[in-house]
Amino acid sequence: MSQPYERACIVGVGLLGASLGLALKQRGLARQVTGVGHRQASLDVALERGAIDTAFLDAAEGARDADLVVLATPASLVIPMMDAVGPVCPDAVVTDVASTKAAICAHADATWPAPRRFIGSRPMAGSEKFGAEHGTPDLYAGSVCLVETGDGLDPAARAAVAALWTAVGAEAVDVAPEAHDAMLACTSHLPHIVAAAVARVADRRGDVRKLVGNGYRDTTRIAEGRPEIWRDICLTNREAILAGLDELRALLESEFTAALRAGDGAGLERFFEEGRDARQRAVGKEGGA
Amino acid sequence: MSQPYERACIVGVGLLGASLGLALKQRGLARQVTGVGHRQASLDVALERGAIDTAFLDAAEGARDADLVVLATPASLVIPMMDAVGPVCPDAVVTDVASTKAAICAHADATWPAPRRFIGSRPMAGSEKFGAEHGTPDLYAGSVCLVETGDGLDPAARAAVAALWTAVGAEAVDVAPEAHDAMLACTSHLPHIVAAAVARVADRRGDVRKLVGNGYRDTTRIAEGRPEIWRDICLTNREAILAGLDELRALLESEFTAALRAGDGAGLERFFEEGRDARQRAVGKEGGA
Repeated sequence: MSQPYERACIVGVGLLGASLGLALKQRGLARQVTGVGHRQASLDVALERGAIDTAFLDAAEGARDADLVVLATPASLVIPMMDAVGPVCPDAVVTDVASTKAAICAHADATWPAPRRFIGSRPMAGSEKFGAEHGTPDLYAGSVCLVETGDGLDPAARAAVAALWTAVGAEAVDVAPEAHDAMLACTSHLPHIVAAAVARVADRRGDVRKLVGNGYRDTTRIAEGRPEIWRDICLTNREAILAGLDELRALLESEFTAALRAGDGAGLERFFEEGRDARQRAVGKEGGA
Repeated sequence: MSQPYERACIVGVGLLGASLGLALKQRGLARQVTGVGHRQASLDVALERGAIDTAFLDAAEGARDADLVVLATPASLVIPMMDAVGPVCPDAVVTDVASTKAAICAHADATWPAPRRFIGSRPMAGSEKFGAEHGTPDLYAGSVCLVETGDGLDPAARAAVAALWTAVGAEAVDVAPEAHDAMLACTSHLPHIVAAAVARVADRRGDVRKLVGNGYRDTTRIAEGRPEIWRDICLTNREAILAGLDELRALLESEFTAALRAGDGAGLERFFEEGRDARQRAVGKEGGA
């Protein structure tokens, strides 16, 4: 980024929004940061932590005359917030951080003047924690942030959004919204859904507190995420998630269950070998060739 | 433990065996620790790390005249090792660390003199790492170790095995072998199988290295475990695992998929709320009431 923003507005001061505010301020990327929230208590925490300078309960007021707006609300609120802020900051670069992109970017295509200054983002950062109280200026450092590509985008706005994420420590990677949702259904949404289901099946066994080890803890950690966030993600990425779940069921049935019923040790070993290799490829380790 | 063992023998010097050897020696719980392995290279690592004092390729030789024998091999080798060491250390307390218990303890019931001195153990420790090189004397500190209960066990041997795990820092908890396998199918084996399947479904999307976040990393970490270990676990706990998988499929179908197809936001939210509560109960957090 060549020069700092005069007035950055962050709509939604949860973990992602507050962390971005802290990063903008700590790195001198914005002279002023306004925050918008629907609960005064959350705004107060963000103010106390220094993630924002001023707080607003109304998005249009908070975003007025901003030159950067980041919509860091749950996915289901991005579209109404986009509609609210668009008219009050006609020169701003606007982005979001929602976990699904196709519906949001299609709405922007349909409603924003071309070339559009709304550019979808999807930072691959965060955890099962939430709220401004867990915000940290380093949340994005070392992570990847996916940035929308496609026709009809304002090239300067696209470059500015990519530069924003780079400036807070992330690697900006181009992705088309539909491809994003199809991929993330399997790399992010499916793991979450399965974590919740695994936790519930184990829970039906009664008090399992002495019977859970590191495997259980790791695989189910994200089941502690916020139900309303995951509800929205699922509703806005329905077809890709249903396809991923079908594939998961078919794989478990045709390869794992069939081998186990048949007592086929070599088949089971192959199933686990392929799982190991897949995991190693995904996290960039050698050996997962 | 009132006094140290004169000669403890650890059969299998992987992560669990080597860590136990280090703990026994560092805490003065055994005057001498012999190690048995089928590969000299593994034994050499265990010797270099100080996890064992002497090394044997033959279990009967390594366990001769031992007063404590711990079978820390993969599950499929516990029964042959039990057969091999039983006759050469007639006064020893013998235990194992395998992840399934019913078949092993049933074999001991059928073949060891009553009251039997073989007592099954199941430490809830370890990780996706393996090998003596990752052994640490603190592996068991703060963990739980399940110890077999049931008829026909030598009470002194049972007390000694519980005391052994307590002495290396674990909490010893009683469990019957069949109950163990039914519970662990859901709290340990199912998470592992699902982690491997989730990693494979994501991998089919192509190069996902930029598209995996903390959720993916956590949920699939254990997919890097050793395929042959997990093959054995599955083969020795078949019915309970198949039952758990059936339950998982039914839960995903009847609650999650049905709600998503219907666009039922409240139903999806409830699914995730129950997953969160289940997880919190299992790890002993408040709120999972």
